[in-house]
Amino acid sequence: MIPKSHADILDKRVCAHIATIGPRGEPQCQPVWFEWDGEHFSMTHTKARQKYRNIHRDPRVALSIQDPDDPLRYMEVRGVVDAIVEDPEGELLNRLSHHYQGKDFRPRPGEERVILKIRPTKVNTHGRALG
Amino acid sequence: MIPKSHADILDKRVCAHIATIGPRGEPQCQPVWFEWDGEHFSMTHTKARQKYRNIHRDPRVALSIQDPDDPLRYMEVRGVVDAIVEDPEGELLNRLSHHYQGKDFRPRPGEERVILKIRPTKVNTHGRALG
Repeated sequence: MIPKSHADILDKRVCAHIATIGPRGEPQCQPVWFEWDGEHFSMTHTKARQKYRNIHRDPRVALSIQDPDDPLRYMEVRGVVDAIVEDPEGELLNRLSHHYQGKDFRPRPGEERVILKIRPTKVNTHGRALG
Repeated sequence: MIPKSHADILDKRVCAHIATIGPRGEPQCQPVWFEWDGEHFSMTHTKARQKYRNIHRDPRVALSIQDPDDPLRYMEVRGVVDAIVEDPEGELLNRLSHHYQGKDFRPRPGEERVILKIRPTKVNTHGRALG
């Protein structure tokens, strides 16, 4: 699903920018840490935040992932959240924090961490001018 | 509209990731060059591409802009495209190419360049973990 031409980007320490659909059908977008296992993009999230409510209402998302070493290279991954897994100890949060920041990161008391599993349905890759 | 705490990010050589709504109500997301003048985010675009059709159908967009020097700092700008200006010579394209790449960039023959003017309606700023 991920073209070989751009697969190397996913091995870099780069965020995805995730677009979701808000309660009034409007787009929302934020950077997120992710892990790609060849089948799903996994992200950590809390149940309290807007994005969690958004993907419950509409599981379709888009990810924009840009090569930090060559900003004209990027991929857009369209996909769906096809599983939400409880992660009470924040194991994914901590693993991602180590990958991105080289340090521990545990959930706050009372914070309900989940893992969003996003299955790609279409991938677009690009070069040239960004506009 | 842009909080002073995060305004410095807009002076850096960083892309915005723009979320738009596709023809089936699905989110789409790509990195784009931009220019901020204190009132609008200006972006160059061609009439041929999907994003241009998207914002004609629904002018609501979201921009995710991350500090390249401190990835935990970012802003999400929600806004609307409130003007589309013809740019046949690609003047904005060329100016952005100079800002981002230090070189000329002119439209291809037959390419119809426009400028999307995005007016912010809400800005969210963040820190801490990205998920």
